[in-house]
Amino acid sequence: MTLDHVGIAVASIDESLGLYRDRLGLKLVHREKVPAQGVEVAFLGEGAASVELLEPLEEGGTVGRFLKKRGPGLHHVAFKTNDIRGRIEKLKKEGTETTGEGPRAGARGHVVCFLSPRSCGGTLIELVEHGRI
Amino acid sequence: MTLDHVGIAVASIDESLGLYRDRLGLKLVHREKVPAQGVEVAFLGEGAASVELLEPLEEGGTVGRFLKKRGPGLHHVAFKTNDIRGRIEKLKKEGTETTGEGPRAGARGHVVCFLSPRSCGGTLIELVEHGRI
Repeated sequence: MTLDHVGIAVASIDESLGLYRDRLGLKLVHREKVPAQGVEVAFLGEGAASVELLEPLEEGGTVGRFLKKRGPGLHHVAFKTNDIRGRIEKLKKEGTETTGEGPRAGARGHVVCFLSPRSCGGTLIELVEHGRI
Repeated sequence: MTLDHVGIAVASIDESLGLYRDRLGLKLVHREKVPAQGVEVAFLGEGAASVELLEPLEEGGTVGRFLKKRGPGLHHVAFKTNDIRGRIEKLKKEGTETTGEGPRAGARGHVVCFLSPRSCGGTLIELVEHGRI
């Protein structure tokens, strides 16, 4: 497991690019809408790990509700694994809960799964396996 | 600039190792007390980017106050640069504020500087230059 990306909830990706791309100098490497998760996302940074900006497509989605409750800021941290199903099975056996329906297609077409913050000391943790589901 | 680490505020590093080291399988690579910042820190992960757990050494420090106000969770995101002084000078010219006294020795002896969340859309951003001050 290695750090894959950190997700940051923002009201506007366009406005946030002024900070992350223009002022901090991170390269915009990918941008897409993910309607199933109610967000538009933008990935920045050329290293092994990147920043994912998340802008809600709808107020009632998870990121829309996060913004309303806590304001913009750090939203989740994602770790890369080469065996997401094996990793989830092990975590569940040890009592870690997942949110949603388990491994599914996420941003960039990768396979993703979120762990419940209740099981993870208040932090929303995502697992990512690069490649199609 | 590349993602260096993500900082997570926790009540207890020892307890949090049960999640990040034992359940998620990240390797503990460094642990130290940083009294100047009122924290004990632990770095986990062998990739280019890592997780930094931050446990307050005192209730009145920045991490102690963060925990009291928001509870445990994502605290800051750090980017690595090879020229922290040049980067800060450029950011300040463009209107980005720093917190504290500018470049100083941080965890692992590296040179660090924090940018004001007011200038960064609500997110606490750290710049890190690896190597001694």
